[in-house]
Amino acid sequence: MLESTVAAIGPLDETAMAAARDLQSRLTKPAGSLGALEPLSVRLAGLAGSCPPPLPEPAAVAIFAGDHGVHAQGVTPWPQEVTAQMIGNFLAGGAVVNAFARQAGASVTVVDVGVATPLPFDPTDQTGSGGGVGEVGGPRLLRANVRAGTRDLTVTAALTRDEARAAVETGIRVAGELVDAGAGILLTGDMGIGNTTPAAALIAAFTGVDPTEATGRGTGVDDETYARKVGVVRAALDRHAPDPADPLGVLAAVGGLEHAALAGLILGAAARRVPVLLDGVIAVSAALAAAAFAPDAVGAMVAGHRSAEPGATAALRHLGLDPLIDLGLRLGEGTGALLALPVVTGAVRVLHEVATFDSAGVAEK
Amino acid sequence: MLESTVAAIGPLDETAMAAARDLQSRLTKPAGSLGALEPLSVRLAGLAGSCPPPLPEPAAVAIFAGDHGVHAQGVTPWPQEVTAQMIGNFLAGGAVVNAFARQAGASVTVVDVGVATPLPFDPTDQTGSGGGVGEVGGPRLLRANVRAGTRDLTVTAALTRDEARAAVETGIRVAGELVDAGAGILLTGDMGIGNTTPAAALIAAFTGVDPTEATGRGTGVDDETYARKVGVVRAALDRHAPDPADPLGVLAAVGGLEHAALAGLILGAAARRVPVLLDGVIAVSAALAAAAFAPDAVGAMVAGHRSAEPGATAALRHLGLDPLIDLGLRLGEGTGALLALPVVTGAVRVLHEVATFDSAGVAEK
Repeated sequence: MLESTVAAIGPLDETAMAAARDLQSRLTKPAGSLGALEPLSVRLAGLAGSCPPPLPEPAAVAIFAGDHGVHAQGVTPWPQEVTAQMIGNFLAGGAVVNAFARQAGASVTVVDVGVATPLPFDPTDQTGSGGGVGEVGGPRLLRANVRAGTRDLTVTAALTRDEARAAVETGIRVAGELVDAGAGILLTGDMGIGNTTPAAALIAAFTGVDPTEATGRGTGVDDETYARKVGVVRAALDRHAPDPADPLGVLAAVGGLEHAALAGLILGAAARRVPVLLDGVIAVSAALAAAAFAPDAVGAMVAGHRSAEPGATAALRHLGLDPLIDLGLRLGEGTGALLALPVVTGAVRVLHEVATFDSAGVAEK
Repeated sequence: MLESTVAAIGPLDETAMAAARDLQSRLTKPAGSLGALEPLSVRLAGLAGSCPPPLPEPAAVAIFAGDHGVHAQGVTPWPQEVTAQMIGNFLAGGAVVNAFARQAGASVTVVDVGVATPLPFDPTDQTGSGGGVGEVGGPRLLRANVRAGTRDLTVTAALTRDEARAAVETGIRVAGELVDAGAGILLTGDMGIGNTTPAAALIAAFTGVDPTEATGRGTGVDDETYARKVGVVRAALDRHAPDPADPLGVLAAVGGLEHAALAGLILGAAARRVPVLLDGVIAVSAALAAAAFAPDAVGAMVAGHRSAEPGATAALRHLGLDPLIDLGLRLGEGTGALLALPVVTGAVRVLHEVATFDSAGVAEK
């Protein structure tokens, strides 16, 4: 499934992009006055292969959750159980991602791709309380646990290649299901205590930046923990010497199950030519893997926001993406992507709804 | 009315702000992980005097339109008639501000406070086609024309003090009507061919920056026109030597009718303790005047976006405001404020809807 998905990802449609550029030039506004929204609208036309491209509606957030063997190295002050507890919070609608999703009219799908501790709700409830794409406010749970957390990447590879592949293909499958159900845009979400450490390792591996540039303070670690975290990332890279031309190998060596699944979600969206709105540092580390699998996948990516994590900036630079929002967020869950969603929708809406100088009888300069 | 409005503007409520800070610390997210949204939510609690503050709904955009005698100096390549033509476009729902307002669920009120040429629709239609606060998609027109455009500020004062006062009080009245009709947040909009020239003069007058720093290329002028525009701003400041401690005098000497009305709208919102979301360079030049009338009015201001105009950055720095969106927009109309609205709503929504660690059974670090 991974290989066929990668093979299905192609370049942007130049004809549709030219049509979008022409339409932008005829709308009742000074040329270029919508700033970054104009090239974004052009790119989304190229992705869809039509001008105007469809409005990116409804929106679907997929939150991939996993745990991390490297938690044992003391890279975060939060107990590992918080991953499972936050899934309970997501399904009850009490997290920030739920509040923002309700506001944006986005569905929320939580995917257990690698949680280590028991989920705090009825284990017979296989699909949560319903709430498909386009149904607001009813988060659902998909169970696709590849293994109960990764291994400690300072000791051994975090995953086998088969485990990494299983997680990537889970992401591809979720993308396909959401698009089949009608989603017009996918938003990346994540939950996993300790997951900024493998994200930093992925960013260092794919971009070549030093671990000090790739590593941040995550949910807010102190100086001592931060120094330990940088050391852990450096040790992992030294031990595994991951090859950026082998993205499955990189994900297996130093990644996480949610990172691998997010790479799959991005590839699945790109193969279906549906835009994928990236959240923060976990998402952009996964996006580097997706781009390594299929460079054209970058055409489907929209950077939602600039995470406060320094590694996110290194990754966005490597991908050539400019984020839409830059407000110092470092929460994850998909919150930054949801805040950026109205900007994406607005960029496309302009091509659908704004009058031309001709049609409105407005003089040009 | 101006004096009583200014007198009604007071400081933020420290008790409500302390309650909001405490609530933020107990919500299920790492402390500070919502970046700029957290202090924004605290400030809006202080403005409302309650925690949580009300959701900023429904939203109302007020677009003040005026023309400018300085148009005769060749500061813009656009014909003056475009101001009136664009009002027709607003009322027909065909402009970018309409598309964004529909998306955001905001009402649109167009106020003719100083258009110079005939409005291109039935002059017996005094109020447009309805569409009050909270009614989406039905832009309405309010007729409050103080005079048919300002005088040429390179030759004489743009307005008399009485005319400037009339425009400010129009803005105050519009704010009051919108708040009385239920608006939970006001968004500034503007339309006026040539209006970045008086905006630059206002910014230079209130902040003390040089005309070269206050003046930008507006809707996209060439090098020659830009040089002329800077010269016009410098000549206006030299001629009138406006005193920043006398905001009505500054607005009269070098302002515009829409700038004065926007200053009134901001004062009116602040007096009613309703947030006012600022659009671009016209809005922030008016905000400088509002802050000169009443320094505490800054507490009600939220900077929607950073306009591509350099003067906007100088004005925001003077006001101590950080913009929410920075995407190179330079359209005006209220478009940048509308793009930022979901960020403001999201910041407040968090205080209403997100579970606490206690209530959700999530462990803390």
